Amino acid sequence: MSKQNILFIMCDQLRYDYLGCTGHPYIKTPNIDALARRGVNFTNTFCQSPSCGPSRMSTYTGRYVSSHGSSSNWAPLRVGEKNIGHHLNALGMRTVLVGKTHMIADKEGMERLGVDPESFIGVHHSQAGFEAYERDDGVHPDGMVKPDLKYNKYLKSKGYNEDDNPWHWAANSVDTDAGVRSGFFNDKVDLAARVSDEDSETPYMTRRAIDFLTEEGNQEPWLLHLSFIKPHWPYVAPAPYNTMYSSKDIIPAIKSKAELENTNQLFKHFMERVSGKTFAKEVARETVIPTYMGLISQIDDQLGILFDFMDKKGLLDNTLIIFTGDHGDYLGDHWMGDKDYFHDQAVKVPLIIADPSSAADGTRGSKEESLVELIDLLPTFIEYQGGSVARNVLDGCSLLSKIRDKETEGTKWRDYTVSEFDYSCQVFRPKTNKTPLECRSYMVATKEWKYIYAPGFPPVLFDLKNDPNELVDLGQSEQHQDILHLMFSKLAEWSLQYRQRETWSEEHNEHMTGIEEKLGVPIGYWDEASAEGKDPGMLPVRKEKK
Amino acid sequence: MSKQNILFIMCDQLRYDYLGCTGHPYIKTPNIDALARRGVNFTNTFCQSPSCGPSRMSTYTGRYVSSHGSSSNWAPLRVGEKNIGHHLNALGMRTVLVGKTHMIADKEGMERLGVDPESFIGVHHSQAGFEAYERDDGVHPDGMVKPDLKYNKYLKSKGYNEDDNPWHWAANSVDTDAGVRSGFFNDKVDLAARVSDEDSETPYMTRRAIDFLTEEGNQEPWLLHLSFIKPHWPYVAPAPYNTMYSSKDIIPAIKSKAELENTNQLFKHFMERVSGKTFAKEVARETVIPTYMGLISQIDDQLGILFDFMDKKGLLDNTLIIFTGDHGDYLGDHWMGDKDYFHDQAVKVPLIIADPSSAADGTRGSKEESLVELIDLLPTFIEYQGGSVARNVLDGCSLLSKIRDKETEGTKWRDYTVSEFDYSCQVFRPKTNKTPLECRSYMVATKEWKYIYAPGFPPVLFDLKNDPNELVDLGQSEQHQDILHLMFSKLAEWSLQYRQRETWSEEHNEHMTGIEEKLGVPIGYWDEASAEGKDPGMLPVRKEKK
Repeated sequence: MSKQNILFIMCDQLRYDYLGCTGHPYIKTPNIDALARRGVNFTNTFCQSPSCGPSRMSTYTGRYVSSHGSSSNWAPLRVGEKNIGHHLNALGMRTVLVGKTHMIADKEGMERLGVDPESFIGVHHSQAGFEAYERDDGVHPDGMVKPDLKYNKYLKSKGYNEDDNPWHWAANSVDTDAGVRSGFFNDKVDLAARVSDEDSETPYMTRRAIDFLTEEGNQEPWLLHLSFIKPHWPYVAPAPYNTMYSSKDIIPAIKSKAELENTNQLFKHFMERVSGKTFAKEVARETVIPTYMGLISQIDDQLGILFDFMDKKGLLDNTLIIFTGDHGDYLGDHWMGDKDYFHDQAVKVPLIIADPSSAADGTRGSKEESLVELIDLLPTFIEYQGGSVARNVLDGCSLLSKIRDKETEGTKWRDYTVSEFDYSCQVFRPKTNKTPLECRSYMVATKEWKYIYAPGFPPVLFDLKNDPNELVDLGQSEQHQDILHLMFSKLAEWSLQYRQRETWSEEHNEHMTGIEEKLGVPIGYWDEASAEGKDPGMLPVRKEKK
Repeated sequence: MSKQNILFIMCDQLRYDYLGCTGHPYIKTPNIDALARRGVNFTNTFCQSPSCGPSRMSTYTGRYVSSHGSSSNWAPLRVGEKNIGHHLNALGMRTVLVGKTHMIADKEGMERLGVDPESFIGVHHSQAGFEAYERDDGVHPDGMVKPDLKYNKYLKSKGYNEDDNPWHWAANSVDTDAGVRSGFFNDKVDLAARVSDEDSETPYMTRRAIDFLTEEGNQEPWLLHLSFIKPHWPYVAPAPYNTMYSSKDIIPAIKSKAELENTNQLFKHFMERVSGKTFAKEVARETVIPTYMGLISQIDDQLGILFDFMDKKGLLDNTLIIFTGDHGDYLGDHWMGDKDYFHDQAVKVPLIIADPSSAADGTRGSKEESLVELIDLLPTFIEYQGGSVARNVLDGCSLLSKIRDKETEGTKWRDYTVSEFDYSCQVFRPKTNKTPLECRSYMVATKEWKYIYAPGFPPVLFDLKNDPNELVDLGQSEQHQDILHLMFSKLAEWSLQYRQRETWSEEHNEHMTGIEEKLGVPIGYWDEASAEGKDPGMLPVRKEKK
């Protein structure tokens, strides 16, 4: 097998519909669009949680949030979970990181199992199975910035020395007449970042990826996870990206007054967050969204540079390229800001996969409407690298058959997708009177219906065929009781699957059927006659009288 | 706190109703009955799986089978699972084993995490958190007996030298005119075992427990898990226990001809196993059940010896005593042998807890009808030892409040109990056309209804008030659709709980609510005015112009 690589690009908080190839009428993303022409554009892809950490832990383990248990941005991933490195390293593939993972190590678990956090195994766990060529999770406000942040060292080396934390006060702040304004406040983010384009986060990370591709020894196949920090807030873009778009280029908010009446109480809690109040104002949308779009075009420009580099190095011929995001951003739709709830704006992500293999020639430029989940990526990587997908560990399914050999009509694929959100860390939790373990919410979506279930709240139901914008909640509709029950039973069916049998492979289990008798543990036989037809060697026989 | 110990006695395959104190009209269990008079007799206790391994893994982890994932007798318990030792050792309590655990170590997981199987941590995992004073899982047929089995060495030292495996050919075989007959065949188990009472398994294990109690240094508090191998098959009892009971002492089979008509297909698969065919014959019941009863009375006699010893050593005053079983035995009821399905005969277990504390004086000799599960034992031990029960790890609930301070009426307790069975290793699996991961079955039982759900099969429903013997399956009854839906929704509700958040305690999670702002990650603020009332120290402010 000739060496084949994987470039796994993930953006942070990139909405599904903010690319040219996914339908945005004004945004310029020519390089990503070109990638879609070379590959397959998966138009119904959902994250496993509309939140950075849980979504990524699902992506890196190939398992639902309820399976791996890291349901919150702040919850460590269990040390026992198999990650992307465990799966791919065993197949001879390096797994290299440039950018964000949001992985939090399970220190208590490592201590319990005697795993030294500084050992190879400890570091492998702590980096979610990646070699951290450059780890940077983004979002480094003064209260939590690490003193050894490489990007801050870089900025200082480039003369951004005014402050100890140039990530915040140079790359994510703007200059106003009154002084320096943090990008955590959104009122001035139409102004340019205080860093140059060159020194801002996206080009820096892209160069780090190119550094790796330059240095790598061309021996082992690699997966490079280029994990951009943007367009996640703080929404601050360097010139010229802050002025590339204006309020004329933004699409109207998808919302209705009716959403404010008889609102499902959990949805209402989310709406009433600070970000909801901010983005309910048109001025916020007009100020922030052009900058958000600029940050996306900056990523696109950088990908152009990266793809050119790869082309010159001959890497486009043997590298599977994935482009996706971890979750979306409401940006004022449904009276919401940020993410964390289950409208498409938050839970749907772009996904493009460009496979250089000639087996994929038949699908280039096509759109694929199957319901896809981010947990499908790791099985795809495993199959691409020639491995087999362990069904007892991995909840997702390889997408390779959708890229290389279009399924024939009728081939079985999932008919619903599931996403989860743990709201235990939300500021509104005290109002819900729920313990953290009770703060569960689930989305089950088919192509026809989206159902949102959170214990203690009424369900939410959207009719996606007749209400594709998800504006009318049918969760209390008498006429929809049957579909509500059906969707709940899908959720139950999903939940009742075995997802913790990592120690017990399907192949081994197949082999173990009827194992007792093979091992000479015959259960319940009356006598020899009752064992007629059984291998006598497997059965204890009467012994001759001595 | 003065030293307090726990004696945790478990029998293997002991039916709920085969004790004097649980209503058997003929069996003699005076010592267990006396224990019930000193303690609380829990009359509605269910195992988490009617199968040795999964039931015990649930007991030793305090977690449902779907939580810990070891759903089969042959499936290793994940190395990352916290066991009884992790919980109790941290509270200063030794956890010591004499007898069976059925624990299978997760070798692959240990290798992945660099845990040397011979290290303290490796051994601790491999023994389910117990110090193996004497580990003996019983059932050592010639095909799987270990050469270093201590009990075999003991038997050989006592002159049972005819055979390399005296466990089988002395302790679990009988002498007939035609020669030695293995107890794996049931036709002659009314004859005496070829070992003496003294040298048979139950007295041997009891002596080993006494050895430990004699040797232990009286320093640290201990939990001693005396885990008897009997009355599990091979049903062979030494004299005089093989003749203690006769066919006059057995209760009639609980079964009806109607059960053989329109039988639920999954139940039918179980019925049609060898053990079902054997025990459907009255001669099998008449031959085996008196011996089964003799094995129970032998345990009772040995417990009398043990309790006397403890009394003389003053241990009864500071030792919490638990007596229970891992699952039941059909013994011909419902046309079934062995266990593995969900009638009370298989899934209900005896549970007596005798607490020496004066706080428990008010409950001595009482019966407690709450729905209890074996996963409640570990939380009980933790609370007894002064620890707090980690709700994010432990699925069960401490029973101490039911022993020491009877709850006031109306205190919330579970209103349904759940048991699970993975039938992937059953000989009939090929007939079901299911992959191993699909071989799932669940019981949900309230005090009124028992509901059995297995994907791909019709549900089973028993009306426990009107049909306490579970003879009429209402799973297809039109009039019971509402109750069927209700029971399914209970199963769904149970399944949808978070059970994999071991890294994320409830206390820590409480503290993390709204953590972003505390860490200086304010999300979605428009400007200072929008942050009115917030601690300004938590928010990034505009910097003065320099």
